[in-house]
Amino acid sequence: MTVLALLDGTIVDHTAPLLRADDLGPLRGDGVFETILVVDGRPRELGPHLERLARSAALLDLSPPPRADWERGVEAVLGAWREPGEMALRLVCTRGVEGGDGTPTAWAMGTAVSPEVLRRREQGVSVITLDRGYAPDLVERAPWLLLGAKTLSYAVNMAALREAARRDADEVVFVATDGSVLEGPTSTVVLAEGRHLRTPPPDSGILVGTTQLALFRAAERAGFTTSVEPVGVDELVGADGLWLVSSVRQLTQVRTLDGRELPDTGTRAALHSELTDLLASEYRV
Amino acid sequence: MTVLALLDGTIVDHTAPLLRADDLGPLRGDGVFETILVVDGRPRELGPHLERLARSAALLDLSPPPRADWERGVEAVLGAWREPGEMALRLVCTRGVEGGDGTPTAWAMGTAVSPEVLRRREQGVSVITLDRGYAPDLVERAPWLLLGAKTLSYAVNMAALREAARRDADEVVFVATDGSVLEGPTSTVVLAEGRHLRTPPPDSGILVGTTQLALFRAAERAGFTTSVEPVGVDELVGADGLWLVSSVRQLTQVRTLDGRELPDTGTRAALHSELTDLLASEYRV
Repeated sequence: MTVLALLDGTIVDHTAPLLRADDLGPLRGDGVFETILVVDGRPRELGPHLERLARSAALLDLSPPPRADWERGVEAVLGAWREPGEMALRLVCTRGVEGGDGTPTAWAMGTAVSPEVLRRREQGVSVITLDRGYAPDLVERAPWLLLGAKTLSYAVNMAALREAARRDADEVVFVATDGSVLEGPTSTVVLAEGRHLRTPPPDSGILVGTTQLALFRAAERAGFTTSVEPVGVDELVGADGLWLVSSVRQLTQVRTLDGRELPDTGTRAALHSELTDLLASEYRV
Repeated sequence: MTVLALLDGTIVDHTAPLLRADDLGPLRGDGVFETILVVDGRPRELGPHLERLARSAALLDLSPPPRADWERGVEAVLGAWREPGEMALRLVCTRGVEGGDGTPTAWAMGTAVSPEVLRRREQGVSVITLDRGYAPDLVERAPWLLLGAKTLSYAVNMAALREAARRDADEVVFVATDGSVLEGPTSTVVLAEGRHLRTPPPDSGILVGTTQLALFRAAERAGFTTSVEPVGVDELVGADGLWLVSSVRQLTQVRTLDGRELPDTGTRAALHSELTDLLASEYRV
Protein backbone atom coordinates (compact mmCIF):
# COMPACT_ATOMS: atom_id res chain seq x y z
CA MET A 1 0.00 0.00 0.00
CA THR A 2 1.15 3.53 -0.81
CA VAL A 3 -0.64 6.72 0.20
CA LEU A 4 0.37 10.00 -1.40
CA ALA A 5 -0.73 13.39 -0.11
CA LEU A 6 -0.09 16.95 -1.17
CA LEU A 7 0.57 19.48 1.57
CA ASP A 8 -2.91 20.98 1.19
CA GLY A 9 -4.17 17.68 2.55
CA THR A 10 -5.37 16.26 -0.77
CA ILE A 11 -4.87 12.55 -1.29
CA VAL A 12 -3.76 11.83 -4.86
CA ASP A 13 -3.26 8.65 -6.86
CA HIS A 14 0.38 7.66 -6.27
CA THR A 15 0.54 5.89 -9.64
CA ALA A 16 -0.27 9.14 -11.48
CA PRO A 17 2.63 11.48 -12.35
CA LEU A 18 3.25 14.29 -9.85
CA LEU A 19 6.46 16.01 -10.97
CA ARG A 20 7.27 17.86 -14.16
CA ALA A 21 10.24 16.79 -16.26
CA ASP A 22 11.83 20.21 -15.59
CA ASP A 23 11.50 19.95 -11.81
CA LEU A 24 14.88 20.43 -10.14
CA GLY A 25 14.25 17.34 -8.00
CA PRO A 26 14.61 14.86 -10.88
CA LEU A 27 16.91 17.12 -12.93
CA ARG A 28 19.47 17.90 -10.21
CA GLY A 29 18.64 15.88 -7.09
CA ASP A 30 18.08 19.35 -5.70
CA GLY A 31 15.91 19.09 -2.62
CA VAL A 32 15.65 17.55 0.85
CA PHE A 33 13.72 14.74 2.51
CA GLU A 34 12.95 12.93 5.74
CA THR A 35 11.72 9.42 6.51
CA ILE A 36 9.59 8.93 9.60
CA LEU A 37 8.42 5.70 11.20
CA VAL A 38 4.70 5.46 11.92
CA VAL A 39 3.55 2.78 14.37
CA ASP A 40 -0.12 2.31 15.23
CA GLY A 41 -0.97 5.52 13.42
CA ARG A 42 1.52 7.61 15.41
CA PRO A 43 4.55 9.18 13.72
CA ARG A 44 7.71 8.94 15.80
CA GLU A 45 9.87 12.03 16.33
CA LEU A 46 7.85 14.12 13.86
CA GLY A 47 9.07 17.36 15.46
CA PRO A 48 12.80 16.50 15.27
CA HIS A 49 12.33 15.25 11.69
CA LEU A 50 10.65 18.50 10.63
CA GLU A 51 13.41 20.47 12.37
CA ARG A 52 16.09 18.48 10.56
CA LEU A 53 14.28 18.99 7.24
CA ALA A 54 14.35 22.74 7.89
CA ARG A 55 18.09 22.57 8.71
CA SER A 56 18.82 20.59 5.54
CA ALA A 57 16.81 23.10 3.50
CA ALA A 58 18.74 26.00 5.04
CA LEU A 59 22.04 24.36 4.02
CA LEU A 60 20.66 24.28 0.46
CA ASP A 61 19.31 27.88 0.56
CA LEU A 62 15.92 26.34 -0.03
CA SER A 63 12.68 27.65 1.46
CA PRO A 64 10.60 24.62 2.37
CA PRO A 65 6.86 24.80 3.00
CA PRO A 66 5.93 25.89 6.53
CA ARG A 67 5.58 23.33 9.28
CA ALA A 68 1.78 23.54 9.31
CA ASP A 69 1.71 22.43 5.66
CA TRP A 70 3.85 19.38 6.40
CA GLU A 71 1.63 18.53 9.34
CA ARG A 72 -1.44 18.78 7.09
CA GLY A 73 0.16 16.40 4.57
CA VAL A 74 1.13 13.99 7.35
CA GLU A 75 -2.39 14.03 8.79
CA ALA A 76 -3.83 13.30 5.35
CA VAL A 77 -1.56 10.26 4.87
CA LEU A 78 -2.29 8.97 8.38
CA GLY A 79 -6.02 9.40 7.83
CA ALA A 80 -6.02 7.50 4.55
CA TRP A 81 -3.78 4.65 5.72
CA ARG A 82 -5.77 1.42 6.02
CA GLU A 83 -3.19 -1.26 6.80
CA PRO A 84 -1.97 -2.79 10.03
CA GLY A 85 1.76 -2.75 10.69
CA GLU A 86 4.37 -0.05 10.37
CA MET A 87 4.50 2.70 7.80
CA ALA A 88 7.52 4.57 6.44
CA LEU A 89 6.37 8.14 5.90
CA ARG A 90 8.47 10.19 3.55
CA LEU A 91 8.43 13.97 3.38
CA VAL A 92 10.04 15.25 0.19
CA CYS A 93 10.71 18.78 -1.02
CA THR A 94 12.40 19.76 -4.27
CA ARG A 95 13.50 23.24 -5.40
CA GLY A 96 10.55 23.24 -7.82
CA VAL A 97 10.48 23.90 -11.53
CA GLU A 98 13.66 25.12 -13.21
CA GLY A 99 13.40 28.82 -13.99
CA GLY A 100 10.14 28.98 -12.05
CA ASP A 101 9.09 31.26 -9.23
CA GLY A 102 10.91 29.26 -6.58
CA THR A 103 7.85 27.44 -5.24
CA PRO A 104 9.10 24.08 -3.99
CA THR A 105 7.43 20.83 -5.01
CA ALA A 106 6.53 18.93 -1.85
CA TRP A 107 4.66 15.82 -0.87
CA ALA A 108 4.12 13.27 1.90
CA MET A 109 4.10 9.60 1.04
CA GLY A 110 3.45 6.57 3.20
CA THR A 111 4.52 3.04 2.27
CA ALA A 112 4.52 -0.19 4.29
CA VAL A 113 7.81 -1.02 6.00
CA SER A 114 9.18 -3.92 3.97
CA PRO A 115 9.41 -7.44 5.40
CA GLU A 116 13.15 -7.31 4.62
CA VAL A 117 13.64 -4.35 6.98
CA LEU A 118 11.68 -6.15 9.70
CA ARG A 119 13.70 -9.34 9.17
CA ARG A 120 16.97 -7.40 9.48
CA ARG A 121 15.75 -5.75 12.67
CA GLU A 122 15.24 -9.26 14.09
CA GLN A 123 18.27 -11.01 12.68
CA GLY A 124 20.87 -8.28 12.31
CA VAL A 125 22.94 -7.38 9.27
CA SER A 126 26.30 -8.04 7.63
CA VAL A 127 28.18 -4.81 7.07
CA ILE A 128 31.17 -3.69 5.02
CA THR A 129 33.19 -0.53 5.59
CA LEU A 130 33.66 1.73 2.58
CA ASP A 131 35.94 4.71 2.10
CA ARG A 132 33.87 7.93 1.88
CA GLY A 133 36.91 9.75 0.55
CA TYR A 134 36.96 12.84 2.71
CA ALA A 135 38.57 14.01 5.94
CA PRO A 136 36.29 14.56 8.96
CA ASP A 137 37.24 18.25 9.21
CA LEU A 138 35.93 18.94 5.70
CA VAL A 139 32.42 19.95 6.70
CA GLU A 140 33.56 23.18 8.33
CA ARG A 141 35.82 24.32 5.54
CA ALA A 142 33.55 23.36 2.63
CA PRO A 143 29.87 23.96 3.37
CA TRP A 144 29.09 23.81 -0.37
CA LEU A 145 29.64 20.04 -0.20
CA LEU A 146 26.38 19.87 1.81
CA LEU A 147 27.76 17.31 4.24
CA GLY A 148 25.21 16.93 7.00
CA ALA A 149 22.25 17.90 4.80
CA LYS A 150 19.74 15.19 3.93
CA THR A 151 19.44 15.97 0.22
CA LEU A 152 17.76 14.15 -2.65
CA SER A 153 21.24 13.59 -4.17
CA TYR A 154 21.59 10.06 -2.80
CA ALA A 155 23.05 8.30 -5.85
CA VAL A 156 26.31 7.61 -3.95
CA ASN A 157 24.43 6.25 -0.93
CA MET A 158 22.52 3.89 -3.22
CA ALA A 159 25.73 2.88 -5.06
CA ALA A 160 27.36 2.03 -1.72
CA LEU A 161 24.48 -0.31 -0.89
CA ARG A 162 24.84 -1.98 -4.30
CA GLU A 163 28.56 -2.42 -3.57
CA ALA A 164 27.60 -4.13 -0.30
CA ALA A 165 25.23 -6.48 -2.17
CA ARG A 166 28.02 -7.28 -4.64
CA ARG A 167 30.15 -8.35 -1.65
CA ASP A 168 27.26 -10.42 -0.22
CA ALA A 169 26.69 -7.93 2.58
CA ASP A 170 23.55 -6.09 3.66
CA GLU A 171 24.82 -2.72 4.71
CA VAL A 172 27.64 -0.17 4.73
CA VAL A 173 29.53 1.94 7.24
CA PHE A 174 31.32 4.86 5.60
CA VAL A 175 34.81 5.64 6.89
CA ALA A 176 36.70 8.94 6.56
CA THR A 177 40.22 9.19 5.14
CA ASP A 178 41.70 9.24 8.68
CA GLY A 179 40.02 5.95 9.57
CA SER A 180 37.26 7.48 11.64
CA VAL A 181 33.75 6.12 11.40
CA LEU A 182 31.16 8.35 9.70
CA GLU A 183 27.69 6.84 9.18
CA GLY A 184 25.75 4.35 7.09
CA PRO A 185 24.28 5.46 3.73
CA THR A 186 20.89 5.83 5.46
CA SER A 187 21.72 5.21 9.14
CA THR A 188 23.65 6.34 12.20
CA VAL A 189 26.35 4.16 13.77
CA VAL A 190 26.04 3.50 17.53
CA LEU A 191 28.34 1.30 19.58
CA ALA A 192 28.25 0.16 23.19
CA GLU A 193 31.17 -0.26 25.56
CA GLY A 194 29.54 -1.83 28.57
CA ARG A 195 26.79 0.59 29.56
CA HIS A 196 28.29 3.46 27.59
CA LEU A 197 26.91 4.36 24.15
CA ARG A 198 28.93 6.26 21.56
CA THR A 199 28.20 7.75 18.15
CA PRO A 200 30.43 9.83 15.83
CA PRO A 201 30.04 13.63 15.89
CA PRO A 202 27.94 15.53 13.32
CA ASP A 203 30.84 17.94 12.75
CA SER A 204 32.56 15.12 10.87
CA GLY A 205 30.06 15.75 8.06
CA ILE A 206 27.32 13.31 8.96
CA LEU A 207 23.64 13.61 9.66
CA VAL A 208 22.37 14.10 13.18
CA GLY A 209 20.32 10.94 13.81
CA THR A 210 16.81 11.55 15.13
CA THR A 211 16.49 7.92 16.24
CA GLN A 212 20.00 7.97 17.76
CA LEU A 213 18.98 11.05 19.78
CA ALA A 214 15.83 9.27 21.00
CA LEU A 215 17.85 6.16 21.85
CA PHE A 216 20.45 8.11 23.84
CA ARG A 217 17.67 9.96 25.70
CA ALA A 218 15.98 6.68 26.64
CA ALA A 219 19.26 4.97 27.54
CA GLU A 220 20.41 7.84 29.75
CA ARG A 221 17.20 7.59 31.74
CA ALA A 222 18.00 3.91 32.29
CA GLY A 223 21.47 4.68 33.61
CA PHE A 224 23.54 4.40 30.45
CA THR A 225 26.15 7.06 29.80
CA THR A 226 26.56 8.40 26.27
CA SER A 227 29.07 10.37 24.24
CA VAL A 228 29.21 11.94 20.82
CA GLU A 229 32.86 11.68 19.83
CA PRO A 230 35.12 10.33 17.09
CA VAL A 231 35.09 6.55 16.70
CA GLY A 232 37.97 4.75 15.01
CA VAL A 233 37.03 1.97 12.62
CA ASP A 234 39.28 -0.35 14.66
CA GLU A 235 37.08 0.23 17.71
CA LEU A 236 33.98 -1.27 16.06
CA VAL A 237 35.02 -4.92 16.30
CA GLY A 238 35.84 -4.78 20.00
CA ALA A 239 32.62 -3.07 21.06
CA ASP A 240 30.07 -4.87 23.22
CA GLY A 241 27.35 -3.94 20.78
CA LEU A 242 27.21 -2.30 17.36
CA TRP A 243 24.09 -1.01 15.62
CA LEU A 244 22.88 0.82 12.57
CA VAL A 245 20.16 3.12 13.78
CA SER A 246 17.50 4.92 11.73
CA SER A 247 13.81 5.70 11.83
CA VAL A 248 12.71 2.73 9.81
CA ARG A 249 15.33 0.17 10.85
CA GLN A 250 15.23 1.28 14.52
CA LEU A 251 18.12 -0.62 16.20
CA THR A 252 19.52 -3.08 13.74
CA GLN A 253 22.42 -5.14 15.08
CA VAL A 254 25.63 -5.49 13.12
CA ARG A 255 26.46 -9.23 13.02
CA THR A 256 29.54 -9.23 10.80
CA LEU A 257 31.92 -6.47 9.79
CA ASP A 258 33.94 -6.85 6.59
CA GLY A 259 33.26 -10.57 6.65
CA ARG A 260 34.33 -11.12 10.26
CA GLU A 261 31.81 -12.32 12.83
CA LEU A 262 31.71 -9.80 15.70
CA PRO A 263 32.86 -11.60 18.87
CA ASP A 264 30.10 -12.02 21.42
CA THR A 265 31.41 -10.71 24.69
CA GLY A 266 28.44 -12.36 26.36
CA THR A 267 26.36 -9.24 26.69
CA ARG A 268 25.55 -8.54 23.05
CA ALA A 269 22.10 -10.12 22.95
CA ALA A 270 21.08 -8.75 26.35
CA LEU A 271 22.25 -5.23 25.45
CA HIS A 272 20.38 -5.34 22.14
CA SER A 273 17.22 -6.51 23.83
CA GLU A 274 17.47 -3.89 26.59
CA LEU A 275 18.14 -0.99 24.23
CA THR A 276 15.40 -2.07 21.81
CA ASP A 277 12.94 -2.09 24.72
CA LEU A 278 14.20 1.27 25.98
CA LEU A 279 13.71 2.86 22.55
CA ALA A 280 10.22 1.33 22.24
CA SER A 281 9.34 2.62 25.71
CA GLU A 282 9.83 6.17 24.43
CA TYR A 283 6.67 5.73 22.40
CA ARG A 284 4.49 3.78 24.79
CA VAL A 285 1.27 5.64 25.51
CA MET B 1 10.19 27.56 -25.41
CA THR B 2 10.45 24.02 -24.04
CA VAL B 3 9.82 20.84 -26.01
CA LEU B 4 9.44 17.57 -24.15
CA ALA B 5 9.49 14.18 -25.87
CA LEU B 6 9.21 10.62 -24.68
CA LEU B 7 11.55 8.08 -26.22
CA ASP B 8 8.76 6.59 -28.33
CA GLY B 9 8.78 9.90 -30.18
CA THR B 10 5.64 11.33 -28.58
CA ILE B 11 5.67 15.05 -27.86
CA VAL B 12 4.03 15.77 -24.49
CA ASP B 13 3.05 18.95 -22.68
CA HIS B 14 6.11 19.92 -20.62
CA THR B 15 3.93 21.70 -18.05
CA ALA B 16 2.06 18.45 -17.27
CA PRO B 17 3.56 16.10 -14.66
CA LEU B 18 5.71 13.28 -16.06
CA LEU B 19 7.25 11.54 -13.04
CA ARG B 20 5.65 9.69 -10.17
CA ALA B 21 6.38 10.74 -6.59
CA ASP B 22 7.97 7.33 -6.01
CA ASP B 23 10.33 7.58 -8.98
CA LEU B 24 13.95 7.08 -7.88
CA GLY B 25 14.96 10.17 -9.85
CA PRO B 26 13.27 12.65 -7.52
CA LEU B 27 13.52 10.37 -4.45
CA ARG B 28 17.26 9.57 -4.69
CA GLY B 29 18.80 11.59 -7.52
CA ASP B 30 19.33 8.11 -8.92
CA GLY B 31 19.86 8.39 -12.65
CA VAL B 32 22.06 9.91 -15.35
CA PHE B 33 21.82 12.73 -17.86
CA GLU B 34 23.47 14.54 -20.76
CA THR B 35 23.13 18.05 -22.14
CA ILE B 36 23.69 18.55 -25.85
CA LEU B 37 23.96 21.78 -27.80
CA VAL B 38 21.75 22.04 -30.87
CA VAL B 39 22.61 24.72 -33.44
CA ASP B 40 20.54 25.22 -36.58
CA GLY B 41 18.65 22.03 -35.86
CA ARG B 42 21.81 19.91 -35.61
CA PRO B 43 22.85 18.33 -32.30
CA ARG B 44 26.59 18.55 -31.66
CA GLU B 45 28.51 15.44 -30.55
CA LEU B 46 25.33 13.37 -30.16
CA GLY B 47 27.28 10.12 -30.51
CA PRO B 48 29.86 10.94 -27.79
CA HIS B 49 27.08 12.22 -25.50
CA LEU B 50 25.11 8.98 -25.91
CA GLU B 51 28.30 6.98 -25.28
CA ARG B 52 29.02 8.97 -22.11
CA LEU B 53 25.44 8.48 -20.94
CA ALA B 54 25.89 4.73 -21.38
CA ARG B 55 29.19 4.86 -19.42
CA SER B 56 27.55 6.84 -16.60
CA ALA B 57 24.68 4.36 -16.50
CA ALA B 58 27.12 1.44 -16.31
CA LEU B 59 28.83 3.05 -13.30
CA LEU B 60 25.39 3.15 -11.65
CA ASP B 61 24.46 -0.44 -12.66
CA LEU B 62 21.59 1.13 -14.55
CA SER B 63 20.25 -0.17 -17.87
CA PRO B 64 19.38 2.88 -19.94
CA PRO B 65 17.09 2.72 -22.97
CA PRO B 66 18.84 1.63 -26.17
CA ARG B 67 20.48 4.18 -28.40
CA ALA B 68 17.73 4.00 -31.03
CA ASP B 69 15.17 5.12 -28.41
CA TRP B 70 17.26 8.15 -27.48
CA GLU B 71 17.66 9.00 -31.14
CA ARG B 72 13.88 8.78 -31.63
CA GLY B 73 13.33 11.15 -28.68
CA VAL B 74 15.96 13.55 -30.02
CA GLU B 75 14.39 13.54 -33.48
CA ALA B 76 10.99 14.29 -31.96
CA VAL B 77 12.33 17.30 -30.06
CA LEU B 78 14.21 18.59 -33.10
CA GLY B 79 11.11 18.17 -35.26
CA ALA B 80 8.87 20.09 -32.87
CA TRP B 81 11.33 22.93 -32.18
CA ARG B 82 10.13 26.17 -33.75
CA GLU B 83 12.55 28.83 -32.54
CA PRO B 84 15.65 30.35 -34.04
CA GLY B 85 18.80 30.29 -31.96
CA GLU B 86 20.48 27.57 -29.96
CA MET B 87 18.79 24.82 -28.00
CA ALA B 88 20.05 22.93 -24.96
CA LEU B 89 18.82 19.37 -25.36
CA ARG B 90 18.73 17.30 -22.21
CA LEU B 91 18.55 13.53 -22.13
CA VAL B 92 17.53 12.25 -18.71
CA CYS B 93 17.17 8.72 -17.39
CA THR B 94 16.17 7.74 -13.85
CA ARG B 95 16.16 4.26 -12.30
CA GLY B 96 12.36 4.29 -12.55
CA VAL B 97 9.76 3.64 -9.91
CA GLU B 98 10.93 2.38 -6.50
CA GLY B 99 10.17 -1.30 -6.12
CA GLY B 100 9.11 -1.44 -9.77
CA ASP B 101 10.28 -3.73 -12.54
CA GLY B 102 13.45 -1.74 -13.23
CA THR B 103 12.14 0.07 -16.31
CA PRO B 104 13.93 3.44 -16.35
CA THR B 105 12.04 6.70 -16.73
CA ALA B 106 13.56 8.60 -19.64
CA TRP B 107 12.89 11.71 -21.64
CA ALA B 108 14.41 14.26 -24.01
CA MET B 109 13.81 17.94 -23.38
CA GLY B 110 14.85 20.97 -25.39
CA THR B 111 15.01 24.48 -23.97
CA ALA B 112 16.40 27.70 -25.43
CA VAL B 113 19.99 28.53 -24.42
CA SER B 114 19.61 31.40 -21.99
CA PRO B 115 20.77 34.94 -22.87
CA GLU B 116 22.96 34.78 -19.74
CA VAL B 117 24.91 31.82 -21.12
CA LEU B 118 25.37 33.63 -24.45
CA ARG B 119 26.50 36.79 -22.65
CA ARG B 120 29.08 34.86 -20.65
CA ARG B 121 30.36 33.20 -23.82
CA GLU B 122 30.98 36.70 -25.20
CA GLN B 123 32.23 38.45 -22.09
CA GLY B 124 33.85 35.69 -20.05
CA VAL B 125 33.28 34.81 -16.41
CA SER B 126 34.61 35.43 -12.92
CA VAL B 127 35.57 32.19 -11.22
CA ILE B 128 36.34 31.06 -7.69
CA THR B 129 38.17 27.89 -6.73
CA LEU B 130 36.44 25.63 -4.22
CA ASP B 131 37.75 22.62 -2.31
CA ARG B 132 36.08 19.43 -3.58
CA GLY B 133 37.36 17.59 -0.52
CA TYR B 134 38.86 14.49 -2.08
CA ALA B 135 42.25 13.30 -3.33
CA PRO B 136 42.65 12.78 -7.09
CA ASP B 137 43.50 9.08 -6.63
CA LEU B 138 40.13 8.41 -4.97
CA VAL B 139 38.26 7.39 -8.12
CA GLU B 140 40.18 4.16 -8.53
CA ARG B 141 39.92 3.01 -4.94
CA ALA B 142 36.27 4.00 -4.37
CA PRO B 143 34.10 3.42 -7.46
CA TRP B 144 30.97 3.58 -5.26
CA LEU B 145 31.51 7.34 -4.99
CA LEU B 146 30.51 7.52 -8.70
CA LEU B 147 33.20 10.08 -9.50
CA GLY B 148 33.23 10.46 -13.27
CA ALA B 149 29.56 9.52 -13.69
CA LYS B 150 27.16 12.24 -14.78
CA THR B 151 24.39 11.48 -12.29
CA LEU B 152 21.21 13.32 -11.35
CA SER B 153 22.70 13.86 -7.87
CA TYR B 154 23.91 17.37 -8.61
CA ALA B 155 22.90 19.14 -5.38
CA VAL B 156 26.57 19.80 -4.52
CA ASN B 157 27.29 21.16 -8.00
CA MET B 158 24.34 23.54 -7.64
CA ALA B 159 25.42 24.54 -4.10
CA ALA B 160 28.90 25.38 -5.41
CA LEU B 161 27.39 27.73 -7.99
CA ARG B 162 25.33 29.41 -5.25
CA GLU B 163 28.55 29.82 -3.21
CA ALA B 164 30.09 31.53 -6.26
CA ALA B 165 27.10 33.89 -6.51
CA ARG B 166 27.45 34.68 -2.80
CA ARG B 167 31.05 35.73 -3.51
CA ASP B 168 29.96 37.81 -6.53
CA ALA B 169 31.43 35.32 -8.97
CA ASP B 170 29.87 33.51 -11.91
CA GLU B 171 31.50 30.12 -11.82
CA VAL B 172 33.55 27.56 -9.91
CA VAL B 173 36.64 25.44 -10.44
CA PHE B 174 36.79 22.50 -8.02
CA VAL B 175 40.22 21.70 -6.57
CA ALA B 176 41.34 18.38 -5.04
CA THR B 177 42.93 18.11 -1.59
CA ASP B 178 46.43 18.06 -3.15
CA GLY B 179 45.84 21.35 -4.95
CA SER B 180 45.25 19.82 -8.35
CA VAL B 181 42.52 21.21 -10.59
CA LEU B 182 39.47 19.01 -11.13
CA GLU B 183 36.59 20.54 -13.13
CA GLY B 184 33.75 23.03 -12.93
CA PRO B 185 30.39 21.96 -11.50
CA THR B 186 29.10 21.59 -15.08
CA SER B 187 32.23 22.20 -17.19
CA THR B 188 35.73 21.04 -18.10
CA VAL B 189 38.78 23.21 -17.38
CA VAL B 190 41.13 23.87 -20.32
CA LEU B 191 44.23 26.06 -20.25
CA ALA B 192 46.67 27.18 -22.92
CA GLU B 193 50.41 27.58 -22.64
CA GLY B 194 51.31 29.16 -25.97
CA ARG B 195 49.95 26.74 -28.56
CA HIS B 196 49.69 23.87 -26.12
CA LEU B 197 46.31 22.99 -24.55
CA ARG B 198 45.99 21.09 -21.28
CA THR B 199 43.13 19.60 -19.31
CA PRO B 200 43.12 17.52 -16.10
CA PRO B 201 42.87 13.72 -16.41
CA PRO B 202 39.55 11.83 -15.99
CA ASP B 203 41.25 9.40 -13.59
CA SER B 204 41.25 12.23 -11.04
CA GLY B 205 37.50 11.61 -10.71
CA ILE B 206 36.14 14.08 -13.23
CA LEU B 207 33.92 13.79 -16.26
CA VAL B 208 35.41 13.31 -19.71
CA GLY B 209 34.39 16.47 -21.56
CA THR B 210 32.72 15.88 -24.92
CA THR B 211 33.28 19.51 -25.95
CA GLN B 212 36.86 19.43 -24.64
CA LEU B 213 37.50 16.37 -26.83
CA ALA B 214 36.05 18.15 -29.86
CA LEU B 215 38.13 21.26 -29.10
CA PHE B 216 41.38 19.27 -28.78
CA ARG B 217 40.62 17.44 -32.04
CA ALA B 218 40.05 20.73 -33.88
CA ALA B 219 43.06 22.41 -32.26
CA GLU B 220 45.39 19.53 -33.09
CA ARG B 221 44.42 19.81 -36.74
CA ALA B 222 45.39 23.49 -36.60
CA GLY B 223 48.83 22.69 -35.18
CA PHE B 224 48.18 22.95 -31.45
CA THR B 225 49.61 20.29 -29.20
CA THR B 226 47.48 18.94 -26.36
CA SER B 227 47.91 16.97 -23.17
CA VAL B 228 45.65 15.40 -20.57
CA GLU B 229 47.62 15.63 -17.33
CA PRO B 230 47.41 16.98 -13.79
CA VAL B 231 47.14 20.76 -13.53
CA GLY B 232 48.08 22.55 -10.33
CA VAL B 233 45.78 25.34 -9.22
CA ASP B 234 48.84 27.64 -9.16
CA GLU B 235 49.31 27.07 -12.87
CA LEU B 236 45.95 28.59 -13.79
CA VAL B 237 46.89 32.23 -13.24
CA GLY B 238 50.02 32.09 -15.37
CA ALA B 239 48.40 30.38 -18.36
CA ASP B 240 48.02 32.21 -21.68
CA GLY B 241 44.36 31.29 -21.76
CA LEU B 242 41.92 29.67 -19.38
CA TRP B 243 38.43 28.38 -20.25
CA LEU B 244 35.46 26.58 -18.88
CA VAL B 245 34.29 24.29 -21.63
CA SER B 246 30.94 22.52 -21.96
CA SER B 247 28.31 21.76 -24.57
CA VAL B 248 26.15 24.75 -23.84
CA ARG B 249 28.78 27.27 -22.79
CA GLN B 250 31.22 26.15 -25.53
CA LEU B 251 34.49 28.04 -24.78
CA THR B 252 33.84 30.51 -22.01
CA GLN B 253 36.88 32.53 -21.01
CA VAL B 254 37.87 32.88 -17.38
CA ARG B 255 38.42 36.61 -16.71
CA THR B 256 39.16 36.60 -12.99
CA LEU B 257 40.17 33.82 -10.63
CA ASP B 258 39.45 34.18 -6.92
CA GLY B 259 39.02 37.92 -7.42
CA ARG B 260 42.27 38.44 -9.32
CA GLU B 261 42.21 39.65 -12.91
CA LEU B 262 44.10 37.14 -15.07
CA PRO B 263 47.10 38.92 -16.59
CA ASP B 264 46.85 39.34 -20.32
CA THR B 265 50.04 38.04 -21.80
CA GLY B 266 49.02 39.69 -25.06
CA THR B 267 47.72 36.60 -26.75
CA ARG B 268 44.63 35.90 -24.63
CA ALA B 269 42.06 37.51 -26.94
CA ALA B 270 43.64 36.13 -30.10
CA LEU B 271 43.85 32.62 -28.67
CA HIS B 272 40.23 32.74 -27.54
CA SER B 273 39.08 33.93 -30.93
CA GLU B 274 41.15 31.32 -32.79
CA LEU B 275 39.99 28.39 -30.60
CA THR B 276 36.35 29.50 -30.72
CA ASP B 277 36.56 29.53 -34.52
CA LEU B 278 38.30 26.16 -34.59
CA LEU B 279 35.61 24.58 -32.44
CA ALA B 280 32.86 26.12 -34.58
CA SER B 281 34.58 24.84 -37.72
CA GLU B 282 34.05 21.28 -36.47
CA TYR B 283 30.35 21.75 -37.16
CA ARG B 284 30.43 23.74 -40.37
CA VAL B 285 28.58 21.88 -43.10
